[in-house]
Amino acid sequence: MFFAPPAVLLNAAAAAEGAPITTLLATLVAVIVASKLLGEVAQRIGQPAVLGELLAGVLLGVSLLGILDPHDPVIHAFAEIGVLVLLFEIGLHTDLASLIRVGAAALTVGATGVVLPFAMGYGVAILFGLANLPAIVAGAALTATSIGISARVLSDLGRLETPEGQVVLGAAVLDDIIGLIILSVVSGLASGVALSVAGVAITTAVAIGFIVAALAIGSRFVPPLFRLVEHIRVSGALGLIALAFAFAMAWLAAISGSAMIIGAFAAGLVLHGTPQRREIERSTTALGLFFVPIFFAAVGAAVDLRTLADVRVLAIGAVLVVVAMLGKFAAGYAPWWFPGDKALIGVAMIPRGEVGLIFAQMGLRTGALDTALFSALTLMVMATTFVAPPLLSRLAGKPARPHSPTDRPGDGGIDDLVAGTRDSQAEHRKGGRPPAPS
Amino acid sequence: MFFAPPAVLLNAAAAAEGAPITTLLATLVAVIVASKLLGEVAQRIGQPAVLGELLAGVLLGVSLLGILDPHDPVIHAFAEIGVLVLLFEIGLHTDLASLIRVGAAALTVGATGVVLPFAMGYGVAILFGLANLPAIVAGAALTATSIGISARVLSDLGRLETPEGQVVLGAAVLDDIIGLIILSVVSGLASGVALSVAGVAITTAVAIGFIVAALAIGSRFVPPLFRLVEHIRVSGALGLIALAFAFAMAWLAAISGSAMIIGAFAAGLVLHGTPQRREIERSTTALGLFFVPIFFAAVGAAVDLRTLADVRVLAIGAVLVVVAMLGKFAAGYAPWWFPGDKALIGVAMIPRGEVGLIFAQMGLRTGALDTALFSALTLMVMATTFVAPPLLSRLAGKPARPHSPTDRPGDGGIDDLVAGTRDSQAEHRKGGRPPAPS
Repeated sequence: MFFAPPAVLLNAAAAAEGAPITTLLATLVAVIVASKLLGEVAQRIGQPAVLGELLAGVLLGVSLLGILDPHDPVIHAFAEIGVLVLLFEIGLHTDLASLIRVGAAALTVGATGVVLPFAMGYGVAILFGLANLPAIVAGAALTATSIGISARVLSDLGRLETPEGQVVLGAAVLDDIIGLIILSVVSGLASGVALSVAGVAITTAVAIGFIVAALAIGSRFVPPLFRLVEHIRVSGALGLIALAFAFAMAWLAAISGSAMIIGAFAAGLVLHGTPQRREIERSTTALGLFFVPIFFAAVGAAVDLRTLADVRVLAIGAVLVVVAMLGKFAAGYAPWWFPGDKALIGVAMIPRGEVGLIFAQMGLRTGALDTALFSALTLMVMATTFVAPPLLSRLAGKPARPHSPTDRPGDGGIDDLVAGTRDSQAEHRKGGRPPAPS
Repeated sequence: MFFAPPAVLLNAAAAAEGAPITTLLATLVAVIVASKLLGEVAQRIGQPAVLGELLAGVLLGVSLLGILDPHDPVIHAFAEIGVLVLLFEIGLHTDLASLIRVGAAALTVGATGVVLPFAMGYGVAILFGLANLPAIVAGAALTATSIGISARVLSDLGRLETPEGQVVLGAAVLDDIIGLIILSVVSGLASGVALSVAGVAITTAVAIGFIVAALAIGSRFVPPLFRLVEHIRVSGALGLIALAFAFAMAWLAAISGSAMIIGAFAAGLVLHGTPQRREIERSTTALGLFFVPIFFAAVGAAVDLRTLADVRVLAIGAVLVVVAMLGKFAAGYAPWWFPGDKALIGVAMIPRGEVGLIFAQMGLRTGALDTALFSALTLMVMATTFVAPPLLSRLAGKPARPHSPTDRPGDGGIDDLVAGTRDSQAEHRKGGRPPAPS
């Protein structure tokens, strides 16, 4: 034929350029624009920006617009890198000495915050007539606080570097370690492996040993290594090699049977004391501005609002939400000797986010959960994640806003970096004024 | 059984965490470390850093270590985003007025640089006894200069903002448009569609019309839009929404039948004149430091060194390399009236990179090429890409080094941003001294 329809040419061009990349670009555009706009709206009505990013995910996700698929391999990879960059940033800003200073309180909050929700969730599930295994999975899904969401909310409120913030951070890290051990045991159970004291002990030792070993070995060998790295003149080398170090630690944590986020956090802790810390922070923050909102949007996108139509799901879900909140809130009061704001600690421990979803997905995959209980757990994750930020803002007695008096001046702390502030260069451009309180 | 082997626990944990992510992390660590180290080595021996990044890709790629698979969907996505960020950066730094000033010269170089290599490549293939269709594919694969590699090399040499640099940039953009049209036609031919004048005309009009329309519409509506965006106080909003704009333009270019990189470049051109340009540049550069080396490493990783063992491949490949270099070099002399350094222009047009590889892959996929000719074309891409940087350094009469006298002082031009310099904050930390020449 003489006239080849343009569609043939267009398809050929699209195939050569890689069609899925165009879909990815459209998704990224939607995620970036929706997170920034809804983040701005959240901040203007006195909520942390992260709430807007989660809502952007729900809006774009499986139940509404269907644009953002959190199970797409590329989106999943971006989201995982986002949570690793976030934990690396948090580690960079964490002073181990002040974390150890609140160690006993953090340990108490973390342990209580695992035991209470697990027991209550298991009990509720049994009362609703569920079998032993699904009840264990349901209880387990209530245990681990989402360190990413908690830290981000506290940082949005300018409270991350207060004693309360450090207790929450320490407890959430412990939570994650305990949660990972429970996950290993429960997924073993769900796959038909009998419970083993030795196996549990080994997993526990590996997870705790990882951080201790990382700190002991890292604090000895990492500073001289980064003194060498500083001699590399290729652009961005220091920041990127620090990021590679965080990725390597995450990988090491995963292959030694611990959680990747533990590795990234440990990498940040190790680099906190180096003289190169500020430049590493700058580079990491710039990448985090891109990757971290994708993580939060992906968490929101996994929520399926259609499950709310089932009355049984709503009933179990509602009860699980209540025990999930009560269990963590009570855990905030467990360190009776701690002088700080215990209600703030308890509420900050409430959001479950990605860790709860990992449990729910594992349960569904192994057949331990049916769709109804899976949806109820998803509801619990959604509710605990969305309820904490406004509660925290109310408890903190002020709307979430960029610069709070608790910031150490000129420190460029994490509150400046991951929270809802424009970067310092932008302020400089406008004449060095900090943004006015909203 | 009482004792569950730890492997079960570890596997369960790994499955829950997403095993492929650990592989991705290991790959990213290898890519970051290898590109930065080899980039540094390249720079210290007087070559542009991009050469080290390409070599890092060859080292990690299919033929040697096998760590970096450029066809992995996630790596492919990272690399595509890398080339889009690079073209967006280049567009941000491109002054349209100076591009138009050298328009006639760029048009002449671009058109000659397509016609000569195509005719010579086709002729060589026919001489080697190939059929008509594979000869056309071979000729077509020689046409398009890799704008990413050329721009990066010129920027490493501090020559991107000279008249010669602008001619190369303009010619490479035209090249890409013409290359895309040829690709559409040839892949139509390879799929058995007859050549159509109307189809070719439509594709051509779409590709050229896209940039013209983007500039005409964009320069009217984008500045007021970004004045609005500037009111968003959420951190990083301006830079990320600018990036989303670049992605949206790339998507628009792809679905209207043009190349994604043309869209990203047009987005940069449109934003070049806005008052927010500096902040957008800062944010884009920070992301580019992560993504762009992944693109260059992926280009290097696609090279299969094992094909060099076949004598026939070596013979065709060597002749194709010679005509590929001669054709583009001669094109540099086509604008006889242009007063600048014509040899520099011709050599800068030589690298083929990703565009040549897209042709070769399309030919292999549609059956138009056998493995031998595919390997010969891969050899051509590899040789032209690796030969240009050292030749350019020699022509420019100085080793590739960070700050060249052609930089406009304090402009923070692309030479500061994509080339081999530590970022300005690092210099500030060291007391504001520019790095000493190597």
